[in-house]
Amino acid sequence: MSESETETRTRRMRCISCREEYRACDAGTCKECYEEASETEEELKREIEDLKAKVAFLRFLSPVDDQYSSCFTDVVLVASSDDDCGEAAVRAHKAVLVSRSPVFKAMLENEMEERRSGTIKISDVSYDVLRSFVHYLYTAEALLDEQMAYDLLVLAEKYQVKHLKGFCEKFITSKLNWNSAVMSYAFAHQHNAKHLLETSLSLIIDNMEKLTKREEYKELVEKDPRLVVEIYEAYLAKQVNTAAPKDSSLLL
Amino acid sequence: MSESETETRTRRMRCISCREEYRACDAGTCKECYEEASETEEELKREIEDLKAKVAFLRFLSPVDDQYSSCFTDVVLVASSDDDCGEAAVRAHKAVLVSRSPVFKAMLENEMEERRSGTIKISDVSYDVLRSFVHYLYTAEALLDEQMAYDLLVLAEKYQVKHLKGFCEKFITSKLNWNSAVMSYAFAHQHNAKHLLETSLSLIIDNMEKLTKREEYKELVEKDPRLVVEIYEAYLAKQVNTAAPKDSSLLL
Repeated sequence: MSESETETRTRRMRCISCREEYRACDAGTCKECYEEASETEEELKREIEDLKAKVAFLRFLSPVDDQYSSCFTDVVLVASSDDDCGEAAVRAHKAVLVSRSPVFKAMLENEMEERRSGTIKISDVSYDVLRSFVHYLYTAEALLDEQMAYDLLVLAEKYQVKHLKGFCEKFITSKLNWNSAVMSYAFAHQHNAKHLLETSLSLIIDNMEKLTKREEYKELVEKDPRLVVEIYEAYLAKQVNTAAPKDSSLLL
Repeated sequence: MSESETETRTRRMRCISCREEYRACDAGTCKECYEEASETEEELKREIEDLKAKVAFLRFLSPVDDQYSSCFTDVVLVASSDDDCGEAAVRAHKAVLVSRSPVFKAMLENEMEERRSGTIKISDVSYDVLRSFVHYLYTAEALLDEQMAYDLLVLAEKYQVKHLKGFCEKFITSKLNWNSAVMSYAFAHQHNAKHLLETSLSLIIDNMEKLTKREEYKELVEKDPRLVVEIYEAYLAKQVNTAAPKDSSLLL
């Protein structure tokens, strides 16, 4: 290294963002790029504010929360796992259901039982989950814990509410750990949740040595051995892929 | 300037954003801040994508555009400046109107004529403006030209649809120029559009020497002289404020 190079690398400058000194070798951007980046950041933040205001405007009063908005409802959703229909019913607007779900759209726009009766039975679901489901259709918001996320994902899949499905899948994926990986993997398979499937599979493969000891593994071998085969196939593929660069480097 | 200082200022480094060379005196951030800023930008962009998806989900099928969504409508809006009510009517959902406008809410939730008849007359408005208005209530979107922006702002003010009012005001403000300044100023006053009022007033004050020659000025003096007084008061206040620092500097 020449003397002047050494000097450049050790000379200290002051960062115009954090105001700390840095050495030339830790230099980032020129002033112009810094200013451009700051402007971009401001613009993005403004866009976020605008979009948030738009969401607040488009958000519907939820018939679950707001006493007034239950005016003008024209359909009733009933959680069919409950016995007491009077208490377990959620009033809603056909127009909202139709605009959020192609399944409700087909039900309500064709001459089906639901259209005539004004009642839609939602089977195998608790009143709480039904309420959260309807609330999401009106507001794009839900308070999730893991169980609620699984339950809502199932409903979202059934009624083809893609946005809710993505929302739940993201939540479940963010909570994923080794204890829930096998169960989540099987669940993701069953409900066609691609992102969750990939993430849980990759977590399983990273812990293959522990896999066969797990109770869920044994259950899965019994219940759906093809899914277990897919785990081994993915593991094998990864081993081959990881090995490949090493082999090719040997050829150099 | 010492020799080493000169050297620092003339030594060239390469910006890790634009890849151009820059001199030390044009340095921006350290590498760490650059990386942090890039991450922040990525995060903001992801947030924008999420919000856009939320808007798309919450956006309603507009009864103006979409033939299907006119199903389950339970109210009719009629542009009362038109003679042919059959053609000039827009079908809508009470639940949507109520959730977007406190004025519609009061109309439809109390025992008023509109609730009984299921028809809401919108006076002094063309069919086109009414269609755009209803479309906005469902989608938070409108194709604006200047006339449409003025017309929709009036409706938004009347029915207290704040989000639409802000949208129109922003559009009008962005198109503001000296030719439209006086008219916009009077309009902003009449319809309580604060941002437009400030921007047009500031444009007028910057062109005071040309003001009294304008036809709109003469009309405004006739029609609403108090607004003209407010222009002169703002002009005077600005002159006093601009003069103040000069005077105080004389005291130093």
